[in-house]
Amino acid sequence: SRKPASPSLSEDQDLLLAAAYVSDAQYNRNVPFETSPRAIRLYYFYNHWTMQVAIYFFICVDLSLALFEEPALFPLPFLATSIAEVLCLTAFFGRLVHFAKVTPQMVFWKDTKNICIMVTIALTLIDLIIYGSLEAVNIHSVRWSRALRPVFLINFPESRQIRRTFRSIRNTLPDILYVFLLFMFSVMIFSLMALKLFGDRGLRTVEGLPYFTNILEIAFELYVLVTTANSPDVMMPAYNFNWWYSLYFITYIIINTYIFMSVFLAVVYNNYRKHLKNEIRKLVYLKRHKMMEAFNILKVKVGTEFVVMEARWRRLARTVMPHISSPHLELLLRISDEGQKGYVDKMNFLRLADLLNIHVVTVNIKRHPLEEWMPWVYQSSVSLLIQRMVRHRIFVWVYDIIILINAIFIALDEKNPFISYAEWLFLSLYIIEILLKLYTYEPRAYFGKKQFWNCQTCWWGVGFPPWLPFCRLVLETLFHPRFRLIVTTLINIGPTILTFGGLILVVYYVFAIIGMEAFHGKVRFFDPNFTTPDALMCGNPALKDSAFARDRYCKNNFNDLASSFIVLMELTVVNQCCALLADGFALVTHQAARLYFISFHVVVVILIINIFIAFILEAFFVAYSLEKSEVETAIERKIQELGVGIQEEEMHDGKLVDNTDAKDSGFSGDDGDNKRKALKGLYFRIASKKYRTVDALLQQMFESEIAPEDEGPPLDEILNFSPSDIYPKVPNFENSA
Amino acid sequence: SRKPASPSLSEDQDLLLAAAYVSDAQYNRNVPFETSPRAIRLYYFYNHWTMQVAIYFFICVDLSLALFEEPALFPLPFLATSIAEVLCLTAFFGRLVHFAKVTPQMVFWKDTKNICIMVTIALTLIDLIIYGSLEAVNIHSVRWSRALRPVFLINFPESRQIRRTFRSIRNTLPDILYVFLLFMFSVMIFSLMALKLFGDRGLRTVEGLPYFTNILEIAFELYVLVTTANSPDVMMPAYNFNWWYSLYFITYIIINTYIFMSVFLAVVYNNYRKHLKNEIRKLVYLKRHKMMEAFNILKVKVGTEFVVMEARWRRLARTVMPHISSPHLELLLRISDEGQKGYVDKMNFLRLADLLNIHVVTVNIKRHPLEEWMPWVYQSSVSLLIQRMVRHRIFVWVYDIIILINAIFIALDEKNPFISYAEWLFLSLYIIEILLKLYTYEPRAYFGKKQFWNCQTCWWGVGFPPWLPFCRLVLETLFHPRFRLIVTTLINIGPTILTFGGLILVVYYVFAIIGMEAFHGKVRFFDPNFTTPDALMCGNPALKDSAFARDRYCKNNFNDLASSFIVLMELTVVNQCCALLADGFALVTHQAARLYFISFHVVVVILIINIFIAFILEAFFVAYSLEKSEVETAIERKIQELGVGIQEEEMHDGKLVDNTDAKDSGFSGDDGDNKRKALKGLYFRIASKKYRTVDALLQQMFESEIAPEDEGPPLDEILNFSPSDIYPKVPNFENSA
Repeated sequence: SRKPASPSLSEDQDLLLAAAYVSDAQYNRNVPFETSPRAIRLYYFYNHWTMQVAIYFFICVDLSLALFEEPALFPLPFLATSIAEVLCLTAFFGRLVHFAKVTPQMVFWKDTKNICIMVTIALTLIDLIIYGSLEAVNIHSVRWSRALRPVFLINFPESRQIRRTFRSIRNTLPDILYVFLLFMFSVMIFSLMALKLFGDRGLRTVEGLPYFTNILEIAFELYVLVTTANSPDVMMPAYNFNWWYSLYFITYIIINTYIFMSVFLAVVYNNYRKHLKNEIRKLVYLKRHKMMEAFNILKVKVGTEFVVMEARWRRLARTVMPHISSPHLELLLRISDEGQKGYVDKMNFLRLADLLNIHVVTVNIKRHPLEEWMPWVYQSSVSLLIQRMVRHRIFVWVYDIIILINAIFIALDEKNPFISYAEWLFLSLYIIEILLKLYTYEPRAYFGKKQFWNCQTCWWGVGFPPWLPFCRLVLETLFHPRFRLIVTTLINIGPTILTFGGLILVVYYVFAIIGMEAFHGKVRFFDPNFTTPDALMCGNPALKDSAFARDRYCKNNFNDLASSFIVLMELTVVNQCCALLADGFALVTHQAARLYFISFHVVVVILIINIFIAFILEAFFVAYSLEKSEVETAIERKIQELGVGIQEEEMHDGKLVDNTDAKDSGFSGDDGDNKRKALKGLYFRIASKKYRTVDALLQQMFESEIAPEDEGPPLDEILNFSPSDIYPKVPNFENSA
Repeated sequence: SRKPASPSLSEDQDLLLAAAYVSDAQYNRNVPFETSPRAIRLYYFYNHWTMQVAIYFFICVDLSLALFEEPALFPLPFLATSIAEVLCLTAFFGRLVHFAKVTPQMVFWKDTKNICIMVTIALTLIDLIIYGSLEAVNIHSVRWSRALRPVFLINFPESRQIRRTFRSIRNTLPDILYVFLLFMFSVMIFSLMALKLFGDRGLRTVEGLPYFTNILEIAFELYVLVTTANSPDVMMPAYNFNWWYSLYFITYIIINTYIFMSVFLAVVYNNYRKHLKNEIRKLVYLKRHKMMEAFNILKVKVGTEFVVMEARWRRLARTVMPHISSPHLELLLRISDEGQKGYVDKMNFLRLADLLNIHVVTVNIKRHPLEEWMPWVYQSSVSLLIQRMVRHRIFVWVYDIIILINAIFIALDEKNPFISYAEWLFLSLYIIEILLKLYTYEPRAYFGKKQFWNCQTCWWGVGFPPWLPFCRLVLETLFHPRFRLIVTTLINIGPTILTFGGLILVVYYVFAIIGMEAFHGKVRFFDPNFTTPDALMCGNPALKDSAFARDRYCKNNFNDLASSFIVLMELTVVNQCCALLADGFALVTHQAARLYFISFHVVVVILIINIFIAFILEAFFVAYSLEKSEVETAIERKIQELGVGIQEEEMHDGKLVDNTDAKDSGFSGDDGDNKRKALKGLYFRIASKKYRTVDALLQQMFESEIAPEDEGPPLDEILNFSPSDIYPKVPNFENSA
């Protein structure tokens, strides 16, 4: 299906096709497209940002419909919500048709994502019709298709990250299943032992109920004990009876809580790692494959080798990035065509996608205005002393201490008049700091885009809200060199945590819809100051005198989407609430609730939370293993060789101006005038290693390991890479521990 | 201090010295010894098993003294316990003096372990004298030195594993400290935010107390929230007031519970891994170093190379392992001197310590007695059919199902007469199984030492206790091929879990002693059926109507060592009890208890539990990475070449007899008679890869990576290996994710 452009295409069409390949490689997209001119135009339209925003908008609308449907936070009539839903479905269908137009038919129908979306649209329509017609004759039924809505969020090609996590979960399932079977087996064995040990002793729980007499009750209690939620309550009757019985529970906790839960983490982490590596390998090979396709379209023969001529290369770059500035483009060309031979060879062409991803920053090296206007005053010895003082580390320390004292004052009682005087003192100290800094540093650098820090300082001047010293304290602590590794890793994983947010949203949404259908209205919330008998039992006689009502958990209910999400969040944070909630809802719904709570625990805690932990562990291990090492891509090396790179860290703090000044002066001495002219005022900012995501770092490592002339396996093989190919046949000491 | 033996030593002395080196290498011991004849004899005495048992006995006695001292489980007069303690101290001092005699002075005084023990002995004696004399004049003081007792458990050279874990913790501390500071900083910032958000709203908790008005109270509550212990109670007042406040708590939980706790795990795991690798490297080099020393003592020059003559080699092996059997020794020699040249060369000599560690098993290949006595009956077609049937997989399955049904019957009500009839049915089925198996398999192989399985079957014949079907069910499940990787890894880590048991014991002991001194008698336990007002408030008016007393937690107290341990165990299993206990004891002791509980949480949960999880993760990762690979030591290869190896798995199940038979017959065809004579009936059992500890596997991997002629760095350097040398300078794609 993917052939080089047919000879009938004009040069412009060729360029468009090549640019499509390059921009796919640049953004790690994988939208297969047909090579007909119409399909290419549609492809560009498909990838336009407005279309992507629109589809996300409709997904949001579709998901948020649950807020307006019964049981609703803001009730709307069924007609309104169903019209909105049909609109969304139409939009999804349109997007799918659009995708089908740019994709070869074979590829489109083989992709389960597309089938999934079509089936879900059909099911939703059927459900809408059935529910609507039943409603019309006043029979109330269940809107089950609402639980399918997250399918759209997962299956549109834009949500690659969430889908990757889902794939990772799917691959982990078989392994997890075996451990889970073993674990359930162990729980059952312990339940039988408990029945034999405690069943006939006539013990009673705190509530006066018989203790450990029914095997299923025991199994449930022991399952909850794994979450540590009902410890030590579940143990107390036996322990009060005889000290030695505690050994049974200790054994249980060691085996099932500590060992099995760690094994779950190990299994999930191991699969996550395998899967991640496989995805990276796939990505890198796909990227290379696409760049090869683009090269094959544009290549011409010069001497013995195939190359891309400079003019075409320029037009290609402009097609991929229409808003690129001329000096920027010249710089990229300089790097790609080092010898200035008038063409770009294959190896350099393959780098284009990465080159386009490098951030470029314009640095205007300017002097302090005071220095320009009144150099005799600014350069006087007193002025220089002040400047040196402000730049000194002790100046920062002194202000750190002032901020700390300020924070303590804020924590103390505000009504004390002495403290409000102190606030004026602090305010004046901060204003002095701002003035001193403005005197010392170049103002535009000081208030630069990336200098949050100093912005903080100027906010004080404006409003002086009491919480601002915290913000500054927080920022200063976070950027302290001691914490740099931890903080930068945490910042790097920020975007990916959003992916997990998406994942959690999907699972929560499905469980919330089910929970709302099952438990809606069973528990009602009354104002906390309200003490009618109804309020004291959450509006349900089954909860009379229960621990659930006593601890005022009535607001933990499934009466609308927002409340359901909070209940599910509480269940995620495994704790006594789990047991209390489960018991509370079990009282109300005759035990059916327990199944719901256990399945939620298995899905969220055993799978998703463990993947989350695995992800954080992995991020830190990559950060640690890179901390002391030097990994540099070819591009970075080239940029450094040309002397036009500027490191991220140099942008921080006031040092910026000094450093670039120094660089600038060294520059004219070392390099030719020609080069300097082209590059003046423009620097590449290489994203510092510290601020890259795990994915990017791993990609870079893998790229530096495969040879530049390695074209990788054929496309089919790339798409079918299996995670089990990842293990080295002979593990060595370095990589196995 | 460690020179080759002086020429004045006789040959016997040489041999003793070399044997000391070899046995140190064999057991990975590191007792530095002087090379004088007297020191070597003392060294052997020092390492004798009786001495080691004696020292462990005294450590146990010393630790268990806490059971008999006030507050005591079994009270004994102060005189008795103090005499016992002085006895133990004398024993420890004696052991230390013994150690000093075999160790070069320089080494002895440089070792902090020895200094620790001496200081602890001195401090304990001082404390005993002070406490005794104050007691004599009826002033009650604190026996603080009791908290130091675990020092002996840690610091005697035999407890290498526990010490290693402590070293690992010590190395992790700086890194953990930075994360902890950041974490506490985050908790404080959130506390300040909470104070500003909720402080002035006049909210009240379920107990009617003011909600979030004191910054320290808030910080404590938020710290407890990290352990998920008081969720969602801590949130409910704010959540009941306004739904949006839940976002504050969700943010807090994501940042502090999930992210920070994972970062703690990452830091601990990363350090654990580094440290583990470093220890392995050290061990391997030390082993090689010691074997080199032994070789240098015994070597003579033959031709151009230094070798050890066969006679000396034999005497050496006999000195190291006095009880080695002659055929076993001949086998080892055959492997070490392959060409039968009459001497062992350097490379083969260095392997001796590993060779001595290989288990040897005598396999008597015998036929079924019935086959010998009545071959015509046993070989008849009906008999063969029965045998084939019993050996068939379906036979096992049928009995698995029978066992499962039996287990379900046991879980059901026992009083039902039908079920007691069924038990007789099951019993007869099991007896039939035993008879059939006895008919099919060779009885001695069937009842062999390692065949737990079948032993299980015969127990039924004897007593038929109802819980035996479980045991069999458990064993059959565990050895199911699906679960093999998980189960064997779990079995492998068993011994190391005991190490963690030791570690936990040390920490628990110290905290228990402190807890007993601080909280002794504050809470009293009454019989659960006892309902006097005193019993309802655990004997302390401060606990009247508290949740602590209401949930009948009175037995969770520090009134004796056993109870203290249970309380600490409950605290380890982080849960609501933590909050309840802390609150309960805080009521009693005016808040001092909270400090105790937080410090316990930091030490046990953040450090020790994370190391435990790291250890389990590591074990599984090594197991996973070895699952598909072939790692074999030179020795294993040599044994396989000689055809005298027998794999562990062949020992299982009934297959044993068949397989060895087959091997035996193939043997005589392939190999010379000479070889066969020497090896008849004796096989090396190579510990299967599956049944090795992480340590052993990593050691083996590292050994296979260093060249056989690599003598490693000098001793001083080996002893000072630092974990930070471990990272590869250029991490690659394989080992960094």
